Amino acid sequence: MLDALFKPRSVAIVGASNNPLSIGHIVMQNLLDHNFRGPIYPINPKSKSIKSFRAYPSVSEVPDDVDLVNISIKNTLVPYVLEDCGKKGVKFAIVHTAGFKEVGEEGLQLERQIVEIAHKYGMRIYGPNSQGIQNSDPAISVYANFTFVPMFPGNISIVAQSGGVGETLKLHLYRIGKGIRMYSSFGNEADVSMNEIIDYYGQDEETKAIMVHIETFKDPAGFLEVASRVTQKKPILALKTGKTSEGTKAVASHTGSLIEQETIADVIFEKAGVLRFHSQQDMIDAAIAFSSQPVPKGERVCIVTNTGGPGIIAVDECMAAGLQLARLSSRTKNTLKKLVFQEAIVSNPVDVVATAGPEQYGGTVAALLKDPNIDSLLLVFVTAPFVDCEGIARKLGEIGKTSKKPIVCQVITIEKWQEVIRLIRGSGIPVYDYAETAARVLSSMTDYGKIQMRKTPSYKRYKPKKANVVQMLKRTKGKEGFLPQKDVFAILESYGIPVVKTAVFKKKEEMLKAAKKIDYPVALKVDTADIIHKTEAGGVMLNIKDEKALKTTFGKMSRKFAKVKPAFILQKYLEGGKEVIMGIKRNEGLNPTLMFGLGGIFVEILKDVQFRLAPLSQEDASRMIRSIKGHPVLSGTRGEKPADVESLADILQRLSNLASDFPAIDEMDLNPVLVFERGKGAVVVDARMKIV
Amino acid sequence: MLDALFKPRSVAIVGASNNPLSIGHIVMQNLLDHNFRGPIYPINPKSKSIKSFRAYPSVSEVPDDVDLVNISIKNTLVPYVLEDCGKKGVKFAIVHTAGFKEVGEEGLQLERQIVEIAHKYGMRIYGPNSQGIQNSDPAISVYANFTFVPMFPGNISIVAQSGGVGETLKLHLYRIGKGIRMYSSFGNEADVSMNEIIDYYGQDEETKAIMVHIETFKDPAGFLEVASRVTQKKPILALKTGKTSEGTKAVASHTGSLIEQETIADVIFEKAGVLRFHSQQDMIDAAIAFSSQPVPKGERVCIVTNTGGPGIIAVDECMAAGLQLARLSSRTKNTLKKLVFQEAIVSNPVDVVATAGPEQYGGTVAALLKDPNIDSLLLVFVTAPFVDCEGIARKLGEIGKTSKKPIVCQVITIEKWQEVIRLIRGSGIPVYDYAETAARVLSSMTDYGKIQMRKTPSYKRYKPKKANVVQMLKRTKGKEGFLPQKDVFAILESYGIPVVKTAVFKKKEEMLKAAKKIDYPVALKVDTADIIHKTEAGGVMLNIKDEKALKTTFGKMSRKFAKVKPAFILQKYLEGGKEVIMGIKRNEGLNPTLMFGLGGIFVEILKDVQFRLAPLSQEDASRMIRSIKGHPVLSGTRGEKPADVESLADILQRLSNLASDFPAIDEMDLNPVLVFERGKGAVVVDARMKIV
Repeated sequence: MLDALFKPRSVAIVGASNNPLSIGHIVMQNLLDHNFRGPIYPINPKSKSIKSFRAYPSVSEVPDDVDLVNISIKNTLVPYVLEDCGKKGVKFAIVHTAGFKEVGEEGLQLERQIVEIAHKYGMRIYGPNSQGIQNSDPAISVYANFTFVPMFPGNISIVAQSGGVGETLKLHLYRIGKGIRMYSSFGNEADVSMNEIIDYYGQDEETKAIMVHIETFKDPAGFLEVASRVTQKKPILALKTGKTSEGTKAVASHTGSLIEQETIADVIFEKAGVLRFHSQQDMIDAAIAFSSQPVPKGERVCIVTNTGGPGIIAVDECMAAGLQLARLSSRTKNTLKKLVFQEAIVSNPVDVVATAGPEQYGGTVAALLKDPNIDSLLLVFVTAPFVDCEGIARKLGEIGKTSKKPIVCQVITIEKWQEVIRLIRGSGIPVYDYAETAARVLSSMTDYGKIQMRKTPSYKRYKPKKANVVQMLKRTKGKEGFLPQKDVFAILESYGIPVVKTAVFKKKEEMLKAAKKIDYPVALKVDTADIIHKTEAGGVMLNIKDEKALKTTFGKMSRKFAKVKPAFILQKYLEGGKEVIMGIKRNEGLNPTLMFGLGGIFVEILKDVQFRLAPLSQEDASRMIRSIKGHPVLSGTRGEKPADVESLADILQRLSNLASDFPAIDEMDLNPVLVFERGKGAVVVDARMKIV
Repeated sequence: MLDALFKPRSVAIVGASNNPLSIGHIVMQNLLDHNFRGPIYPINPKSKSIKSFRAYPSVSEVPDDVDLVNISIKNTLVPYVLEDCGKKGVKFAIVHTAGFKEVGEEGLQLERQIVEIAHKYGMRIYGPNSQGIQNSDPAISVYANFTFVPMFPGNISIVAQSGGVGETLKLHLYRIGKGIRMYSSFGNEADVSMNEIIDYYGQDEETKAIMVHIETFKDPAGFLEVASRVTQKKPILALKTGKTSEGTKAVASHTGSLIEQETIADVIFEKAGVLRFHSQQDMIDAAIAFSSQPVPKGERVCIVTNTGGPGIIAVDECMAAGLQLARLSSRTKNTLKKLVFQEAIVSNPVDVVATAGPEQYGGTVAALLKDPNIDSLLLVFVTAPFVDCEGIARKLGEIGKTSKKPIVCQVITIEKWQEVIRLIRGSGIPVYDYAETAARVLSSMTDYGKIQMRKTPSYKRYKPKKANVVQMLKRTKGKEGFLPQKDVFAILESYGIPVVKTAVFKKKEEMLKAAKKIDYPVALKVDTADIIHKTEAGGVMLNIKDEKALKTTFGKMSRKFAKVKPAFILQKYLEGGKEVIMGIKRNEGLNPTLMFGLGGIFVEILKDVQFRLAPLSQEDASRMIRSIKGHPVLSGTRGEKPADVESLADILQRLSNLASDFPAIDEMDLNPVLVFERGKGAVVVDARMKIV
């Protein structure tokens, strides 16, 4: 419970001083400027008073209870102050002071020490190296933070790992006159965690949307758990930065390494239903709409404009954002035709033309809201100097207050008509500077609508021979690294994943015996870790039709690779399948990631792969397959029959179970998996597995 | 020459009235509010005076010369007024009045009539259905436009097909206190054209950047010619909207139809060196920087920040936008280490930390500008309450005034420090709300830098047998449609484009004779327009090794397609090539478009194709090949040898010549062209050509 942090009844400021450039002074001033509802106790052993407030030499000497302490003294003095706070019964200490974990080993020790001291007294640490917290709730009004953007009540709550980003987010809400609910920039996260804060915002009735800025996940599993819960009630909008350092990591040709750190964020957000944004502005714009508009029930948007050009831009952008242009019902069309001027265009976008007054523009919007074919409205409104613009705005304001469908708006105007913007915004309809913005926002809201409508995931029940795998992995104990292919195939088969008939051998006689069992045509492959691209090196021969050809091929290959004395693999040669790849990657402190993509150039050149977090539901597996760009290759092009994607989905779910059951699997690549036409299944042709 | 339009010495307003909601009144008020430097003559037969100005019953009764007339009376009265204006010697008439071409045939007739009348007197029409023009030049200060965004001097000029979009562009410059130079929204473009206006802006010394909004090109060839000239002197930023109606056109499987109208805009912009933007905001943000900053000489950006998180965002975004992070020289590093605080990070991004004052922040920027490894600077600056923020801004302002390298800036602040923004902007350094914006702007500037550095294109000189083709096309006169493959191949060969050995026949004996000439292995294909996907229909057999096999195959195929009595094609079967496709599409009133892409799924599923306008220079052809996403397939992956891209470039240039020489070629597809490894050439395997 973070009540005493976000709703403190009293605050003490250790490091309060009369120097206006000190953190302590700035925090105190912020508390005063925002009329904190409880008492403030400046702590300073050297001053009798700070800003006319009686100062106390230590927290323990404050005569009343203290819920929250803000600390901005030298790092090495923090432990002493905390002992004092602990004894006093303080509940939370916001440590602004830097010089902890972020400066190296010594700082890390100090950081551990202060958490220990706090926990000894049942106190919690917020920070260190933190900006602070804010809560605009008029009953509290706490600004225990040294930043500068003024606070007033709203219903968007923010938690930002970077204070600079947090300040930017606050700033732009403030600039358009939009308040916030709670704010938090938590610094080193030594004790109170980002996840706890999100959870707290989730439970706060007044918070309608949450903006999160993340640089690194301290506890990704915890985030997944909390976010999954919260997104069922309200949207979480996330900005994950620091993409580049990950992005520049060399991506080896080896498919497994496609699973980079950056994708971890994506799979967590996907699983938890968190909306990811790639710019601060996009996130802020969306948060504004989420805070005051209902969520659309579908993708069908209708655009209304009184100026043609921006209406066209709105169409372009809605389409680009994946929305659909609603088709107006004939009833709506008839209503509109009676309502608007002759020059108006009654289709989507609806152009009411610049001469439209309150009756025409307002009436059109009201009629469209009643149309069951429409899920959301995007309005473009230029304040034409020759019509009653305030009248239009008043109408839109009235409509906006009761609309059950989301409305977003671009207004083109200047100060002279500021009342127009005030009236529209006052009804909860967000006003943006550009049609493009309004369209993107609607798209985000539509995405969240889909998240809310997600069915409870259904997980297939399989009966794998888990004991077999336990047994097999026992044997590898202490021998980390890649397993022999034979073992990998056996493990896959234990989980019901079909593999191609295969034999591994060194001698010709073994091969010929195996060939009889496998049956022709066969494929012969050299089996050694020394050769990476086997095909190019001449170590793979496909479609060997009989024993004679097999003997010849074996002879050639043996001579070619005589130096490395390799083992060989003989497999049934299968014709007509399409190559796909699948993979598993273990994640530290989180379920494993599953990977799916088309083989060959699709993965190697186009990086056309999808990632998901285990466990995979049936919907996850199907969506994963459908989401690759090259999906038409599987669904059938040029009159080809569609591939057996159901089998692929089944294998993915079995893999998900395997990965979840055995955390010792560090990574696994099935490359290729051959999939045949619908009803004819799929089969693993090659697989690697690394154990830790 | 548009001087009398943009620099009128006097303006008459036909339709001026005392009704404040009339266009005439609004235009007159705008002229007055902006202190137009010449006399204004309201024309109104019913009033003695308008806004205390003596009114004249007609233009001809004005006692002095009139350069420009604004007309906003009923459409059917416009011709009479124009006759009067013509007799008076008026030079330009801005027709605001609507009800012309945009309302149908009758309006079109009226529109033609007014242009005729004007030209009879040597007068020019601007519009009709137009907003008007503005020129902020203090010696003129003309606001002959009925819109509302106030005007003050600047050096960005705007021409917008949509008045609503134009107003939005003006509005956002105005909001951040940025002036404009000239403005123009030209309506129906009956006479004075967008191209003329761009040309005029190009010649205006004070215009540093031009923003263009286009919905449809009236004269694409004219635009290409003008823009190509202007972009050598100053950047043209373009927003082409109405992408969707084109985008939704069904894209048939036939590759030729990939060349849609929307791509015309892209090829024109590419050829002319116009910077295309996909949102109004992106274009405005870039224009602001272009108007006051030098163009970067390269891609190497250095980021300076006093707050970590936004610095990371700047890095992410610079990378995403295709910029490079500069590596600081060791000299610069040494200088910085002496300058900044111990906690600062001296690498790129440089984090001077929030406690940095004028000396640290300003000094760092000054030192970085001297580093030859750096082409541009992106600054992030939060006004930390505990440092001398104005001092820092003053330093940055001083540096900005003389910098030869572009600097862009994100400032995180509130009104309290508005002087900070004023000081920085005053030096010409643009200030943005978000690091993402600053990064994107730098990327656009870098793109323009590359355009400026483009070499004069070098065109290969070929000696095609043009007469052959003339002869061949003469025979097709009057028979529009697809040519027989034999003729297509002959045409290609006349232009030196290699085609595979091919014979077309109906009878077995002809086939066997041809096979001897062609030599085995061969491929046999059914040749009929009735079968679209020949391979899937069993109408293609490859790699036929000898006469016996050929006879068998022919027998089977003849039986299979007996109903359609097809002709057959016999070709040399070539192994080991990679499939690419090429194409030509004729453009009305513009050079033809050339197309290039990889074959198969790349074109059919991923639409991975490039388009360019003829004529293709050597650089164009190479860049076209390099620009496809699947380019690694050609450059060699997994140890494969690179393909003969030089041959492909050569064929593309020859195709370009062919297309330019024969406007009768409506469209042409070479699909596939097989390309072999470097040095081994490429050859056309199949080709279709349609003649009009």
